Amino acid sequence: MSELVMRAEKLDAADELRGKRDGFVLDDVVYLDGNSLGALPAVVPGRVEDVVRRQWGELRIRSWEESGWWTAPERIGDRIAPLVGAAPGQIVVGDSTSVNVFKALVGAVRMAGEGRDEILVDATTFPTDGYIAESAARMTGRTLRPVAPADVPGALGGRTAAVLLNHVDYRTGRLHDLPALTAAVHEAGAYAVWDLCHSAGALPVGLDEHGVDLAVGCTYKYLNGGPGSPAYLYVRRELQDRFDSPLPGWNSHAEPFGMRGGYEPAPGALRGRVGTPDILSMLALEAALEVWDGVPVEAVRAKSLALTDFFLECVAAYVPEGRVECLTPVPHAERGSQIALRCDDAGDVMKRLVERGVVGDFRAPDVLRFGFTPLYVGFADVERAARVLAQTLG
Amino acid sequence: MSELVMRAEKLDAADELRGKRDGFVLDDVVYLDGNSLGALPAVVPGRVEDVVRRQWGELRIRSWEESGWWTAPERIGDRIAPLVGAAPGQIVVGDSTSVNVFKALVGAVRMAGEGRDEILVDATTFPTDGYIAESAARMTGRTLRPVAPADVPGALGGRTAAVLLNHVDYRTGRLHDLPALTAAVHEAGAYAVWDLCHSAGALPVGLDEHGVDLAVGCTYKYLNGGPGSPAYLYVRRELQDRFDSPLPGWNSHAEPFGMRGGYEPAPGALRGRVGTPDILSMLALEAALEVWDGVPVEAVRAKSLALTDFFLECVAAYVPEGRVECLTPVPHAERGSQIALRCDDAGDVMKRLVERGVVGDFRAPDVLRFGFTPLYVGFADVERAARVLAQTLG
Repeated sequence: MSELVMRAEKLDAADELRGKRDGFVLDDVVYLDGNSLGALPAVVPGRVEDVVRRQWGELRIRSWEESGWWTAPERIGDRIAPLVGAAPGQIVVGDSTSVNVFKALVGAVRMAGEGRDEILVDATTFPTDGYIAESAARMTGRTLRPVAPADVPGALGGRTAAVLLNHVDYRTGRLHDLPALTAAVHEAGAYAVWDLCHSAGALPVGLDEHGVDLAVGCTYKYLNGGPGSPAYLYVRRELQDRFDSPLPGWNSHAEPFGMRGGYEPAPGALRGRVGTPDILSMLALEAALEVWDGVPVEAVRAKSLALTDFFLECVAAYVPEGRVECLTPVPHAERGSQIALRCDDAGDVMKRLVERGVVGDFRAPDVLRFGFTPLYVGFADVERAARVLAQTLG
Repeated sequence: MSELVMRAEKLDAADELRGKRDGFVLDDVVYLDGNSLGALPAVVPGRVEDVVRRQWGELRIRSWEESGWWTAPERIGDRIAPLVGAAPGQIVVGDSTSVNVFKALVGAVRMAGEGRDEILVDATTFPTDGYIAESAARMTGRTLRPVAPADVPGALGGRTAAVLLNHVDYRTGRLHDLPALTAAVHEAGAYAVWDLCHSAGALPVGLDEHGVDLAVGCTYKYLNGGPGSPAYLYVRRELQDRFDSPLPGWNSHAEPFGMRGGYEPAPGALRGRVGTPDILSMLALEAALEVWDGVPVEAVRAKSLALTDFFLECVAAYVPEGRVECLTPVPHAERGSQIALRCDDAGDVMKRLVERGVVGDFRAPDVLRFGFTPLYVGFADVERAARVLAQTLG
């Protein structure tokens, strides 16, 4: 048995989160694509069945009250809150990430006021944030300026209304410095909007602690909410009264069943709601979040770093030097919970890897992405993934 | 046995759609709230279980291709199309009705061009359309003017960019004249946006035939998609190249997996997509739509009118004159698939009705709403509902 296999065994034996794997439906595949679609939590199928057969099928319309459907967006928001370092009452769940980026960015620009005419956006962002930011800029009469996150401090100024940044880069897995960048944005008198898609559930975010203004994120990656499960919107408590949504649907009205012609926004986080919540997907997510009971995000972060460290070590040991280039930063402070490897034939390599039972994903044009979900990925998985990768590249 | 009970029996015996009721999970309640939340189609629980356990749980990320997740919005759109009189390739499913109203109305205003600075909105609309229209007007620099649908022809002019109308009034059940109003809007050189929430699945809409420009609708009422199931957006084929979405998320990109920084809209209806589709809710809807196999909308309309006629007759026979006031027009050409009765104590009355097994809903401040879903409501239900209503009002 190789030294790395033995190391993996020891690391797994000492892993405090090991038992959490039983909370998921998994097979003998090494699933390193939880940063795209999280695995199925074992509690979800039964819950969804209850929602469909009993809550919808038997109680029908009564479930809006009796099964807590109407309050699901804020209730589930409060369940996500501790995972991203937020006190209750600041997050609502609903709509897609793209729609929430629109709400958050337009909301931030409106808070900044007329005098500030520029929006900065992460130039390396997952594309949808850039497209939506362009629309938000166009519809609020601002200019959009793409800037690499590292260059944001130098680009800030009296013109800056808002800055839209990714906590972790979807492609490279680079973790950006949320506390420092948020502080810089505030120093310039602007508003910081963070996209947490690739960090929530994988590492501490500290929204409240670092004074983030608005944030959005999806729930189908490290939060395991299921395919296309609803995203969420965080609006810092102090800003909620000033949050002026571009999508003031009836669910955000102070009195939604008053059926009033005039719009009067609800107080608090509810103001981020729009239309009727998507109950099946939303309650599947609520069930999925139960796997987090008793799991400190700090423990998840520690294991995530140990997993990615170990993967890099195994890749270095197994893969011939120069065959792949690691795009993910080595320093822990700059690393999310994925490893991105560049190679020219990445598309083909990923196909063959999947055939051999190691599932990551391919991001055009040349990136192999491997996501490490500490709740269900173990060190033996990591060793096997690197070994099969080396064979595949061979 | 009373004459009306016997009539109900005969009508049920002659009902061609009667067998469709077996396609739903129903109990001994008279469910007249399908215009708020449709009953559970029997095929849905098994389908959802497969989506959760096999597609998500076993295939995981592979399902985006192998289970047809990625193409669900347009595939399900094409399934809704014949129900609203649309040829394929013009409808995508996703997001809430409110979000789709925003896309449609901003899209319409942009088609109309800079010279037209006014949006007309149905003054009697379900509130969310009005709130969202206000936002669309504000964000496109237009003025919003609420107008009763009957007054729209007189309000149209060279300033009119777009008109947002409801096909059926959510409160009164009044059916508006979609062909004539659309023609009037076109004559003024403006764009017609229709909200089909209370008509799709209950009566013929004829989107293509009447040249409607854009339309939106929910799927959880007469289409039985489940609580908060995704809404849809119709963009007439000839206008699709000019549809400029205010929510240009990555799903609407010509090459969504190209991960390009620059936005280039997809051709066709796909342009109406935004973010990652909400798969659980979406595929529940897809299953729910199977109950429509072999059901002509015309047959549904004929039965709907027979049901509401019979309900009015039973109410007239059982309820003391003057105790309730019917807000729904008597002429068939002006009636949707619901009956709205006004009485001062409507809130209390509906509570007691529900306790006695007749489920309608209450709309503030004084309306009892009864929705008639021809696929699962029968004439005996109607007679019983009127009888229990009379006892409750008694």
